[in-house]
Amino acid sequence: MIDIDALQAGQPRALAKAITLVESKKLDHRTEAQALLEKVLPKTGNSIRIGITGIPGVGKSTFIEAFGLYLVSQGKKVAVLAVDPSSPIAGGSILGDKTRMEMLSRSPDAFIRPSPSEGSLGGVALKTRETMLLCEAAGYDVILVETVGVGQSEYEVASMVDFFMVLMLPNAGDELQGIKKGIMELADALVINKADGESLNYAQQTRRHYQNALHLLRHTSFWTPQVLTCSALKNENIEAVWGMISDFQIDATKNGALQEKRARQAKEWMNKLLHEMLEMKLQENPEVRKQMPLLSDKVTRGETTPYLAAQTIIDLLFRG
Amino acid sequence: MIDIDALQAGQPRALAKAITLVESKKLDHRTEAQALLEKVLPKTGNSIRIGITGIPGVGKSTFIEAFGLYLVSQGKKVAVLAVDPSSPIAGGSILGDKTRMEMLSRSPDAFIRPSPSEGSLGGVALKTRETMLLCEAAGYDVILVETVGVGQSEYEVASMVDFFMVLMLPNAGDELQGIKKGIMELADALVINKADGESLNYAQQTRRHYQNALHLLRHTSFWTPQVLTCSALKNENIEAVWGMISDFQIDATKNGALQEKRARQAKEWMNKLLHEMLEMKLQENPEVRKQMPLLSDKVTRGETTPYLAAQTIIDLLFRG
Repeated sequence: MIDIDALQAGQPRALAKAITLVESKKLDHRTEAQALLEKVLPKTGNSIRIGITGIPGVGKSTFIEAFGLYLVSQGKKVAVLAVDPSSPIAGGSILGDKTRMEMLSRSPDAFIRPSPSEGSLGGVALKTRETMLLCEAAGYDVILVETVGVGQSEYEVASMVDFFMVLMLPNAGDELQGIKKGIMELADALVINKADGESLNYAQQTRRHYQNALHLLRHTSFWTPQVLTCSALKNENIEAVWGMISDFQIDATKNGALQEKRARQAKEWMNKLLHEMLEMKLQENPEVRKQMPLLSDKVTRGETTPYLAAQTIIDLLFRG
Repeated sequence: MIDIDALQAGQPRALAKAITLVESKKLDHRTEAQALLEKVLPKTGNSIRIGITGIPGVGKSTFIEAFGLYLVSQGKKVAVLAVDPSSPIAGGSILGDKTRMEMLSRSPDAFIRPSPSEGSLGGVALKTRETMLLCEAAGYDVILVETVGVGQSEYEVASMVDFFMVLMLPNAGDELQGIKKGIMELADALVINKADGESLNYAQQTRRHYQNALHLLRHTSFWTPQVLTCSALKNENIEAVWGMISDFQIDATKNGALQEKRARQAKEWMNKLLHEMLEMKLQENPEVRKQMPLLSDKVTRGETTPYLAAQTIIDLLFRG
């Protein structure tokens, strides 16, 4: 059993246990996790949820450590979650050894949690979404959701956060390299890291380039995507990144855009889960499981139409 | 009632009536249409199904007329179907007045059918797929499925034909203009039309350009996408286009690739319909229809989790 009082009091051990429950694939754990989430729901939603992506080598760990430590110095409680569908080690993930963010992980106001190694229903994103809610219930003010950008993970992260940020390298020539199609449209900010020393000029050029490019890409009613430069290693301009996000949070809360975005995300997420659950119903139904390959064979041999075969499966599913 | 004997004897009026039945949205017509399709299934599959796309101005009508007349002159029976999800006029569509292909439409061995103006379950593509089967049952040897390339229509057409062809303009500078992402990967051939007069040189350049580009894009085990030039207006090189497709048909039949492709298409189509039917089950269930907006509101207000709301809808759907 999870100690809800301890969780809501912000005790890291209670939070960690609650996350493990949410991550469990056992059916009774799932039921228990949902009951827990229902109970803490009124305490959730009070953080700013920030998604961070960027290609390997861009300095994500260094950035998150510097950014996290800055936030902690400003009196914030910071949770770092990772969405990493490619991770091969159970419970390990890219954040596993915590050596990546050594200083941040030692702070009592920071909570770092690796992603589960694989997903079942709803995948990794389900766990991360619900883990985010648990962190909010435990009083964390800023949730950083990190992804290495494998598969669909950037899109998933963008669909669960308030503010989505792409870290980039200060190389004007590399322009769109490594950035997947559609990511730029999702970005609320581009942050060009490693803007120090000899790279400073490059970084400024790259910044201007993307500022022009972003203007062409998207206009939401109130937020114009920003392009900033910083150096996580030298701890330069980190406060400007937070200043920008803080402005966004204030504006988006005031004009209702934040609540609207979250409402839309939750609804889309519900629909996605609904369709995954329907898919599971098909897979679990013994009659469907028996008939599906036979019907599929008849369809491929041209002995029945795809329509009739599909109709037969539907009839089986709703008869039993 | 449809006269199946008349249909299988290739009488255009019987075929037209059968297509109208297949296109009908009425539930009892749907049942009747499926019964008809089951009956004629053994007579289907004996045509070569050719998809044709290309941006407006590329000369699609002129090409199809020239190509169709050539095929008729070779003793083939040719059916022309159109997938045009954007058509505003019921039964009208881009082919409505038949003036586009005046000579071809007068041939007793050609059958031209506009697309239905809107789709219900399975959309326009369902009707076109099933219409294709009816044309085969009526003895048509070559089915040309044309699309103007609105929305998803090229992808849909590519997923229902044996051979997918993109018509292009002989302008080397315009390269990928107007060609949607992913279309090139689907193309079994590019045909550069209007390769005549002063454009002949351009056409040859464009041809070389695409030959190189296609090599980078895709390799199937046996078919290398071809790039041809022709002039539909001057009736030049039309026989080369058919020669290529004929080669494809012979090779793909011999090595089993054609049957494999059709089997895979039918199976994917079955799965697509299955999911559309599940969606309809949700929409038709009165309890789900009542509760869905309420649950959706609770989710957007943060009063329940997307998971629990989805689970509740699933329970309602399978209880009633």
